[in-house]
Amino acid sequence: VAKRLEKFKTTIFTQMSSLAIKHGAINLGQGFPNFDGPEFVKEAAIKAIKEGKNQYARGFGVPDLNSSIASRFKKDTGLDVDPEKEVTVTSGCTEAIAATMLGLINPGDEVILFAPFYDSYEATLSMAGAKIKAITLRPPDFSVPLNELKSAVTKDTRAILINTPHNPTGKMFSREELGFIATLCKENDVLAFTDEVYDKLAFEEDHISLASLPGMYERTVTLNSLGKTFSLTGWKIGWAIAPPHLTWGVRQAHAFLTFATSTPMQSAASVALRAPESYYEELKRDYKVKKAILVDGLKAAGFIVYPSSGTYFVMVDHTPFGFENDIAFCEYLIKEVGVVAIPPSVFYLNPEEGKNLVRFTFCKDEGTLRAAVDRMKEKL
Amino acid sequence: VAKRLEKFKTTIFTQMSSLAIKHGAINLGQGFPNFDGPEFVKEAAIKAIKEGKNQYARGFGVPDLNSSIASRFKKDTGLDVDPEKEVTVTSGCTEAIAATMLGLINPGDEVILFAPFYDSYEATLSMAGAKIKAITLRPPDFSVPLNELKSAVTKDTRAILINTPHNPTGKMFSREELGFIATLCKENDVLAFTDEVYDKLAFEEDHISLASLPGMYERTVTLNSLGKTFSLTGWKIGWAIAPPHLTWGVRQAHAFLTFATSTPMQSAASVALRAPESYYEELKRDYKVKKAILVDGLKAAGFIVYPSSGTYFVMVDHTPFGFENDIAFCEYLIKEVGVVAIPPSVFYLNPEEGKNLVRFTFCKDEGTLRAAVDRMKEKL
Ligand SMILES: CSCCC(=O)C(=O)O
Ligand SMILES: CSCCC(=O)C(=O)O
Repeated sequence: VAKRLEKFKTTIFTQMSSLAIKHGAINLGQGFPNFDGPEFVKEAAIKAIKEGKNQYARGFGVPDLNSSIASRFKKDTGLDVDPEKEVTVTSGCTEAIAATMLGLINPGDEVILFAPFYDSYEATLSMAGAKIKAITLRPPDFSVPLNELKSAVTKDTRAILINTPHNPTGKMFSREELGFIATLCKENDVLAFTDEVYDKLAFEEDHISLASLPGMYERTVTLNSLGKTFSLTGWKIGWAIAPPHLTWGVRQAHAFLTFATSTPMQSAASVALRAPESYYEELKRDYKVKKAILVDGLKAAGFIVYPSSGTYFVMVDHTPFGFENDIAFCEYLIKEVGVVAIPPSVFYLNPEEGKNLVRFTFCKDEGTLRAAVDRMKEKL
Repeated sequence: VAKRLEKFKTTIFTQMSSLAIKHGAINLGQGFPNFDGPEFVKEAAIKAIKEGKNQYARGFGVPDLNSSIASRFKKDTGLDVDPEKEVTVTSGCTEAIAATMLGLINPGDEVILFAPFYDSYEATLSMAGAKIKAITLRPPDFSVPLNELKSAVTKDTRAILINTPHNPTGKMFSREELGFIATLCKENDVLAFTDEVYDKLAFEEDHISLASLPGMYERTVTLNSLGKTFSLTGWKIGWAIAPPHLTWGVRQAHAFLTFATSTPMQSAASVALRAPESYYEELKRDYKVKKAILVDGLKAAGFIVYPSSGTYFVMVDHTPFGFENDIAFCEYLIKEVGVVAIPPSVFYLNPEEGKNLVRFTFCKDEGTLRAAVDRMKEKL
């Protein structure tokens, strides 16, 4: 294996999902729904396949999808973007992240991110040869330590990477925090990369796109995807929205990472993104019910549950149960309780910082969530 | 844009396909069929979508597809590979190439490839920080200059990258050439990366996998895809087959480039790869007819046509028409003749070497090929 990837292990999602299968445990680990996506989107994919939309798509996206993405972004943020010059369709948001890093970051550039972080950030920054600085968000509220963040910026800082709503904590960056980051970016000529795949799963306040803050669009790459919002995580449609000079870098990396993304899936994604607002409202309503089941259950089982205001994840403290660390706790949980969760220490540069925490997902049907909760209440 | 991608332009395939649309020209440029893939494969995709196979696949491939890939490889090469440990499904062969380079090549490693080459080789080697050495295959037969190849190997050579059947020339590496490369690899402890996406389009002799030569499997990464063989280039299903120690590197890069590939498309690919031999025979029979139409027409139009024994491409010399270079010729061809082809100078480290050449594809229905040929006979 090349040095750039030496330190990484099999991703925790793969590890945990295999263990779930092996032990027949209820999988509240990796974030994929155990229910299906909407019929109208599936029908659109079937129609595209039948109609013969089965050859290479245009590299940066089928025109219809680029337009749908631009329209939704306009609705969400008020920003007008050119679908032909500022939108790039990728094979999932994971590819959009890789293309952003490889397309825009040079070896030696410093990139600031917030721990805990989705593991591909660190790995793709390593591929790009970046120097990573991690600012830790700490429980109970995972707020941004503003002074620490400010001191982390140097003349070599090329970008600040945020993820809001935030996986794995469920935190949403507040308007104040976003404003602070925006000011730092503008004052120090720093780019912003913002992963907003859970934007439609914001339960308390509306999601705010960093790009929508004054003067930010021109220096921001906004990343998003279809999978979480449409319960079709296996379709792997993502995108990056950025001004033309940044889009150029993203597209050049994308052209050589995958060239193009599945054509029939893109056609269907384009139909999905034109869903009426009521679709998103219903989704949120459903997820609120699921969240309540899980959160109440986790509390009843004895966890310290941290507030989650977005995403379909909840972070808890497992120390009431007396295990040494998150790995030991998750092992017990799988083998003795029959529930899979994600041990978050892999999402920190310093794994120690995550050792008291465990992440659960509630993107499962209510019966599954209840069954998992019952097992934990009984056996923990 | 990051330095690693500075020298690259919009891929020639994207440029030419947009020009084709803009000028209403017949597109014999980018290699995608203008006919549809087989019904049984499309039906399998539809079934998978309907059945709800719409969530994240296992990162390295859905178990069924890994098995189908291993079985076909066994049939084709006689080699037994473990579908769980030696097969990685990727989002098209382009991603398999990127994952191989980023997963196995370190900065400063030398990689030898043959010019002309598919453009993503150079770009992904640049992402990996490799030093590229290109050995030029020259017309009329594009044979490997064995001594030149041998002298190119140094103590820093990490890998030799081949592509057989070869895009853009249609050359197939002979048993003698493959044997020579194998010996070089073994004597100098060098890896082999072999892109075999056109393996089923071998018109004169059977395709030979480099991995099947004695002692080679353990040092070879074999890359392939669904798209060319099943006329479904837009589905973006590729794979890498390699011994476990090399698979590890490929999988680690893949995990962070895209994580996983479209689940319903993988289900369908698995059905496709279990097609009986008669499917491949018919495909080849059809392509032979198409090839004859194009080759005869190009000759009649006045080109010097080089023999193509595999792929769905033919390379020609355009100098009888008196243009300065391939770009100038292709511009004329689009604007005045109404046909799009690929100018191959971008596939050389030194573009001068490709300036007399043009690549045409025959992956189009017979009517389209005849219409293109008629235009060229009339207007060139
Ligand atoms: C490839 S797993 C993607 C992210 C996610 O769903 C998770 O964090 O569980
Ligand atoms: C992304 S284009 C892939 C290769 C091909 O089809 C071509 O060479 O035309």
